[in-house]
Amino acid sequence: MIQSLDSNPDLGQKMHQWARELWPINRSLSGPGVRQTLEFLKQQMPNLQIQGIPTGTTCFDWTVPAEWEIRDAYILNEKGEKILDFKKNNLHVVGYSTAIDRKMTLEQLQSHLHSLPEQPTAIPYVTSYYSSRWGFCLSHQQRQSLMPGLYHVVIDSTHRQGALTYGELRIPGRTEKEILLSTYVCHPSMANNELSGPVVTTALAQWIAANQDREFSYRILFLPETIGSIAYLSRHLDEMKKNTVAGFVVTCVGDERCHSFMPSREGQTLADRAGLHVLKYLDPQFKKYSFLQRGSDERQYCSPRADLPVASLMRSKYAEFPEYHTSLDDLNFVTPRGLAGGFEALQRAIFIIENNGFPEVQVTCEPQLGKRGLYPTVSAKGSADSVRTMMNLIAYSDGSRDLIEIADLIGASALELIPITKKLTEHNLLKFENHRATSRK
Amino acid sequence: MIQSLDSNPDLGQKMHQWARELWPINRSLSGPGVRQTLEFLKQQMPNLQIQGIPTGTTCFDWTVPAEWEIRDAYILNEKGEKILDFKKNNLHVVGYSTAIDRKMTLEQLQSHLHSLPEQPTAIPYVTSYYSSRWGFCLSHQQRQSLMPGLYHVVIDSTHRQGALTYGELRIPGRTEKEILLSTYVCHPSMANNELSGPVVTTALAQWIAANQDREFSYRILFLPETIGSIAYLSRHLDEMKKNTVAGFVVTCVGDERCHSFMPSREGQTLADRAGLHVLKYLDPQFKKYSFLQRGSDERQYCSPRADLPVASLMRSKYAEFPEYHTSLDDLNFVTPRGLAGGFEALQRAIFIIENNGFPEVQVTCEPQLGKRGLYPTVSAKGSADSVRTMMNLIAYSDGSRDLIEIADLIGASALELIPITKKLTEHNLLKFENHRATSRK
Amino acid sequence: MIQSLDSNPDLGQKMHQWARELWPINRSLSGPGVRQTLEFLKQQMPNLQIQGIPTGTTCFDWTVPAEWEIRDAYILNEKGEKILDFKKNNLHVVGYSTAIDRKMTLEQLQSHLHSLPEQPTAIPYVTSYYSSRWGFCLSHQQRQSLMPGLYHVVIDSTHRQGALTYGELRIPGRTEKEILLSTYVCHPSMANNELSGPVVTTALAQWIAANQDREFSYRILFLPETIGSIAYLSRHLDEMKKNTVAGFVVTCVGDERCHSFMPSREGQTLADRAGLHVLKYLDPQFKKYSFLQRGSDERQYCSPRADLPVASLMRSKYAEFPEYHTSLDDLNFVTPRGLAGGFEALQRAIFIIENNGFPEVQVTCEPQLGKRGLYPTVSAKGSADSVRTMMNLIAYSDGSRDLIEIADLIGASALELIPITKKLTEHNLLKFENHRATSRK
Repeated sequence: MIQSLDSNPDLGQKMHQWARELWPINRSLSGPGVRQTLEFLKQQMPNLQIQGIPTGTTCFDWTVPAEWEIRDAYILNEKGEKILDFKKNNLHVVGYSTAIDRKMTLEQLQSHLHSLPEQPTAIPYVTSYYSSRWGFCLSHQQRQSLMPGLYHVVIDSTHRQGALTYGELRIPGRTEKEILLSTYVCHPSMANNELSGPVVTTALAQWIAANQDREFSYRILFLPETIGSIAYLSRHLDEMKKNTVAGFVVTCVGDERCHSFMPSREGQTLADRAGLHVLKYLDPQFKKYSFLQRGSDERQYCSPRADLPVASLMRSKYAEFPEYHTSLDDLNFVTPRGLAGGFEALQRAIFIIENNGFPEVQVTCEPQLGKRGLYPTVSAKGSADSVRTMMNLIAYSDGSRDLIEIADLIGASALELIPITKKLTEHNLLKFENHRATSRK
Repeated sequence: MIQSLDSNPDLGQKMHQWARELWPINRSLSGPGVRQTLEFLKQQMPNLQIQGIPTGTTCFDWTVPAEWEIRDAYILNEKGEKILDFKKNNLHVVGYSTAIDRKMTLEQLQSHLHSLPEQPTAIPYVTSYYSSRWGFCLSHQQRQSLMPGLYHVVIDSTHRQGALTYGELRIPGRTEKEILLSTYVCHPSMANNELSGPVVTTALAQWIAANQDREFSYRILFLPETIGSIAYLSRHLDEMKKNTVAGFVVTCVGDERCHSFMPSREGQTLADRAGLHVLKYLDPQFKKYSFLQRGSDERQYCSPRADLPVASLMRSKYAEFPEYHTSLDDLNFVTPRGLAGGFEALQRAIFIIENNGFPEVQVTCEPQLGKRGLYPTVSAKGSADSVRTMMNLIAYSDGSRDLIEIADLIGASALELIPITKKLTEHNLLKFENHRATSRK
Repeated sequence: MIQSLDSNPDLGQKMHQWARELWPINRSLSGPGVRQTLEFLKQQMPNLQIQGIPTGTTCFDWTVPAEWEIRDAYILNEKGEKILDFKKNNLHVVGYSTAIDRKMTLEQLQSHLHSLPEQPTAIPYVTSYYSSRWGFCLSHQQRQSLMPGLYHVVIDSTHRQGALTYGELRIPGRTEKEILLSTYVCHPSMANNELSGPVVTTALAQWIAANQDREFSYRILFLPETIGSIAYLSRHLDEMKKNTVAGFVVTCVGDERCHSFMPSREGQTLADRAGLHVLKYLDPQFKKYSFLQRGSDERQYCSPRADLPVASLMRSKYAEFPEYHTSLDDLNFVTPRGLAGGFEALQRAIFIIENNGFPEVQVTCEPQLGKRGLYPTVSAKGSADSVRTMMNLIAYSDGSRDLIEIADLIGASALELIPITKKLTEHNLLKFENHRATSRK
């Protein structure tokens, strides 16, 4: 199992730097922005495989849509001034907008404009993947300043046969059983509800790959939300159902507000149990949502026929923070410290799953710890607590409970129990069965 | 399954009118009053079978008692004035009183009088089925006005070999599995704790019979309380244990106070789940009682060896409202509106059971609702909620949960889910298994 | 089953008298004090078997330690005055102290002295069983009054090959299934956290032996804490696992404060259920501890490989009352009334287990109690409640629930249900299966 939780103290800065480099790329469901993004990530993870599924491919109930490429988009006023310019902010164009090059009155234009009266300085993020339309997004302030007149509207975009592109990184472990990490790469300049996901996932992948003693194999996915996970599942569901012991959708892991938890559909899987246990100690004020408030790829992974054990450990949950899906979800809102906290929660959950197992005491009655030097030799502050924790761990190590359940029962952090378990196993006081074919719930 | 919840908007008035016609009939455990009552009901339900079980028949631990017939009863004062007259109010005589024709002092009479000091204007309702005695009931006000003197007491009654009479209506459905409705016809002029039961049950029977698409068969019983259900069970228990999926004792369903719920003994049967679900939406302030507070025929239906899934959806529960078992439980206390509300609760519970089932989604991952026109086309208020409800229904349609469980899980009314389920089934997105041989709990 | 809860009204006094006689004996893990104590108890229980396990015997992970004998111990000041004398209070010497006869300065002496700054008048109770050392215990007041100078320190003690001694009383019953009582005899002059245990256990043993109709067999143990129960289990675990239906560690049962409950490790055994039920009625304010706060021989009996159903019904729990492990835990703190209350809780728990079983009603529908005279004939206060209790007992006597579960379900004391159950069984209304091979939980 992975032995160490260590990571680079500058990791937060490093992740934030990656996010800054990815920021200007115009991502969407598909197209060159996604490929550029994946190429950048491949520099950090050379084994990342970039895959494509052709436009028009049927994936369960869905069809892979055409690729969208946008070269330019702007609106000129009567004076020929660019009052909106996609090249300055890629949120200005509704995602998947059809091409247009036409003059129209303000009145005609209005039905194609999107703004937020209640957040007058923010540019909203709007898409229209599955019905053909075009539009522009702007701040409500700017919209209100538009004068009647004739506007020249240009969107130079193409929809064409191509592919849905995603990145897949497989890291083998001691067993075929695997942990899934899934994040998305389909939003343009969004920081928390996009870039925090790929950069934290990349950092997790580097940490996992650097630890040679992996118990589990890892399947790490960077894909467009919804259609991407559906398309991926349509190719890999059988093996994933067979092997996945836990999974996490990595999203909204970059701001500094309190942590949030989205359970799996059943709510009792190993991913749920490890995630809840971690947040209880890392951020006791964390907010626990219901699966009814789901909104990312757990919608697919946890759907009845997929039924994978997938939860989310977030900072501020999508659709719940005011900056969500606006230009305010930027790299000031997402910080190095926020990213480091998002990373830490997931790292701990993975570490605990790697080191989880079913301890079973090997002596009848309490063992005599004194003769093995397992009592603390110096009576330091907390040493009585630490003996008590060890004795409680032993008392519940009956082979029927895993470490997470025992930790919750005895009121101790699993992170504290892992080294004690190792010490007791070395002294042959415990047998430790690393994982077990249990039901997912 | 029954397709419609529609019913006559004048139904409350109609039920109240039936109750007014039944009011003067002198019902008791057995005898002509019960038969008259059943004959009246048969006019509303021509297929009602009127059955008799002879006096002296052994029914489990009990014996069918003699029939009681009363022709007249009164008390004359020294002046020959009728101070109490059974013909004016049939509550004046203790039920099952033996015959008497004797003069006696007020002092001698007192031990045979029943009144309620704390409700001085009410005449109590008193019976003595299983020990021979006679008595009169009167208001405490009247009792206190009685002058010393000689009174002439007359009860012209007979106990004789006869039969215990009850009504049985069987309405066949698509399956042999059946729903039980049981109500009682053994109290004289009592409105909530008697007549509300038979009239609401009659209205339910007419609604059920008018719906040709019944999934379940129905067994609808009108019988004297306790001995009636015991006697009936002694003849039909095996088939009822085999077929009953849910049952309701219909009692106290006519006043306008809040609804009440009496669970089955185990508390988790389909009758309990449907009933609780209905009241949660129909009357969120409803009062949930414990089976320890039982008092009607669920005492027999839920006894350990019968163990049928029978609950009660009431308005004001017997023994809990001040008018109970007094002349105040009359047709002012029971109203058309109260009866309509009592009917509605039971109708909804039956409708939900008829339309209940185990939905199982037929696609992997979320279905694409847009291409099927299942997204609302106009973005009306509430349409997002309605899509969310549909998606939540699909998310939990894993074939292991019935509609009531899903409704409770996703915080939606089953009545709202039923049409959605039908629409999704028509689009082949759901398979719907109508009922399942599950354990009763 | 045991038919009667009667016991000697002077029992509290009698137990307190035994405690006074046992008080001066210098008990420790092993040695003459333990044997003297057991010889005294054998006078009250002639069938008590006194057993020994030789020094050096391996018992699971432990080894039986050498016997400790102490003949004298004192400290002389420069004037030759005995400032501490073991013969006056056996707490003055650290248990298992090695021998010494030496003069030393106060400074040298200090590291061998034990006192309690926060309880300045109390002498602490200190032992050092598994590492060789010597020491004296004294009040902090006395310690602070010691003048610099030369002290003559004498401990005349021996550690030698011998035996671990314990007492075992087996009382046969109708079945081999047994109830375990275990108490300890290894503390010197401690009243609640020692003598209350053996004297209450002795009184329980006398009450059990006096009742000929025992359903269960009894295994009653008087042994040194920890090593004693480990050693005993190493010889008897297989038969105990096979036969034990419930067990209690009898400790801290002598003061007058509120009752306390220590569950078994799993918390749902028959011992837990009976114990909790008793305390709910005997002392509704009782304090329920968690198994994480364990501290006596349930640590061994409930360890994963032993996994016996053992709980504790205490007055003030060890380590939770300020007098604990000091000279203040004396026979003023423990009183006749306190002991009687400790006895009563355990007696009731045993009585309920003896009379527990699975009642199953023998008629379908409610039985007719009237014809059997089971309705109260006089309508005394509370008689309606008593009929209701009887009907509720019958309603849940479905053969799947034991009497304790039914009592908790219907809100009645099992002590109240036991005679009703007997009466109904005599009338053939109930069949009563006395005990059942159920899982321990």
